[in-house]
Amino acid sequence: MITALCGGVGGAKLVHGLYHHQPDSLCVIVNTADDLEFCGLHISPDLDTVTYTLADLSRRDVGWGLEGDTFQALQMLSRYGVATWFKVGDQDMATHVYRTTQLQQGLTLTEIARAISRGLGVTARILPMCDQRVATRLHAHGEWLDFQDYFVRRHYQDTIDEVRYEGVEEARVTEPVLEAIAAAEALVVVNSNPVLSILPILAVPGVAEALSKAKVPRIAVSPIIGSRAISGPAADLMRLCGREASALGVARLYAGVVDGLVVDVQDAADQSAIEALGIRTLVTKIVMQTVADRTRLAGEILKFAGRLR
Amino acid sequence: MITALCGGVGGAKLVHGLYHHQPDSLCVIVNTADDLEFCGLHISPDLDTVTYTLADLSRRDVGWGLEGDTFQALQMLSRYGVATWFKVGDQDMATHVYRTTQLQQGLTLTEIARAISRGLGVTARILPMCDQRVATRLHAHGEWLDFQDYFVRRHYQDTIDEVRYEGVEEARVTEPVLEAIAAAEALVVVNSNPVLSILPILAVPGVAEALSKAKVPRIAVSPIIGSRAISGPAADLMRLCGREASALGVARLYAGVVDGLVVDVQDAADQSAIEALGIRTLVTKIVMQTVADRTRLAGEILKFAGRLR
Repeated sequence: MITALCGGVGGAKLVHGLYHHQPDSLCVIVNTADDLEFCGLHISPDLDTVTYTLADLSRRDVGWGLEGDTFQALQMLSRYGVATWFKVGDQDMATHVYRTTQLQQGLTLTEIARAISRGLGVTARILPMCDQRVATRLHAHGEWLDFQDYFVRRHYQDTIDEVRYEGVEEARVTEPVLEAIAAAEALVVVNSNPVLSILPILAVPGVAEALSKAKVPRIAVSPIIGSRAISGPAADLMRLCGREASALGVARLYAGVVDGLVVDVQDAADQSAIEALGIRTLVTKIVMQTVADRTRLAGEILKFAGRLR
Repeated sequence: MITALCGGVGGAKLVHGLYHHQPDSLCVIVNTADDLEFCGLHISPDLDTVTYTLADLSRRDVGWGLEGDTFQALQMLSRYGVATWFKVGDQDMATHVYRTTQLQQGLTLTEIARAISRGLGVTARILPMCDQRVATRLHAHGEWLDFQDYFVRRHYQDTIDEVRYEGVEEARVTEPVLEAIAAAEALVVVNSNPVLSILPILAVPGVAEALSKAKVPRIAVSPIIGSRAISGPAADLMRLCGREASALGVARLYAGVVDGLVVDVQDAADQSAIEALGIRTLVTKIVMQTVADRTRLAGEILKFAGRLR
């Protein structure tokens, strides 16, 4: 069993690569601090992105949503005056309607994620980081923004000076997450945005402790190449938590959490400084443009884990 | 102002004809005893059919749903194990999502129906019969069936021996319905199924009383031609309330409620027996196959109302 920690679009690509190698023995712990309510529906964007990606249903152009999905419902909602900047397709809406109903009937997010992934034929176990509501909020020029407002509506243009994971102190690690960590032969923190996707998972009481007890290789993949994020606002947000936007900065951020870091060939110069932190390195090409790239990188990570074992 | 009492598909055609003549002075009181919950969404099929029909958005083949609507969400829900015999299109689902959210926020069905019809550019006032939940249930071979189960899933094949409008005693007439009745120059009970669409409206405490006080022409249109319903199970259900399935049976059912009845040319022989009940008759072609038929019949009804005034 391999267990991965993951956010949305970028990280889902690597999870997809891992799934290729481990279709029946992969577990993914997914950030849910981006969850939102849209028109009364509970949306879990990262859970959905991971599930759709593993089900080979995700859009090939942007990574979110479903390939070939239509937007008839959203257009109709706009006629009723609903703000429609969060783009929910028709098939996607079914997922949200289903999740919302099941939550109302008292099922947990964990149980519902399992039903959805089974419904879509995914054999990996996809787990929300917790069953409680946690909300990433970002402070910019004197006001607190909701995550999707910052990320989707405002295209992460605001300069953020503080991040909170609201509700995370009241959240608690689930039994399936603890089991997924305990049963893993290797733990992979994928190349998701550390501040927006990975730190919220690590902030759920019980998760970091379980990871620290794991006696198996724990490997992160850098989301930074040179001084820039592969995609999104990861570089700027790294600086916010006092780390430089570089492979070495990522190593310092994850020190104590991981034993190995996968960095890009462009960052080979950071290798000795990272190893000086007690973190072993794998230097390879980490940009995934094709499905073959995902499979190749995932395969290298699994071999790297073998060497660390 | 003309005020009509209406159910779903069949009746909506005539309401559409009335709307052609009275685009800014038509009020429609609509049955909501067919309302159902589907996957956590509150669906008001008759309200939606009337609204979509007046907005010229309804399907031309079957009368329910929206022309050109797709079923992507429903197909996705079926992958999650949701029963999908109730056919909700993608655009249609937006209406249900919107209504459900607004209800959760404390708005009334009346307020929401107004927002939906305005959103779709309908200038007629479309009113649910009440704001409380009423549910038509049908007793067949020892069990009680929900309305949509009987009507949609089982295609009204069961022989019904009892009908109930559950919750109707606790319902109450709304102010807008009272105003629509009081302000009308004529009241039209359209050709909807009496037992399934019109009697539930009349059963809402306060509605029948308001109609009986109205000093304006009150005209019904027969849903029966010969001994058969124009569509649906109206004929069988007429017998259930002790009335024969005929124009005369309709007249006896509505005696005391209406002053005039529009019957088909095939039922001209019933004319004198109907008039003997104190109900004036208009004999004309009442099947509406084309939009022109709707407009023509509605025009004749408005002239008939003028003669009764």
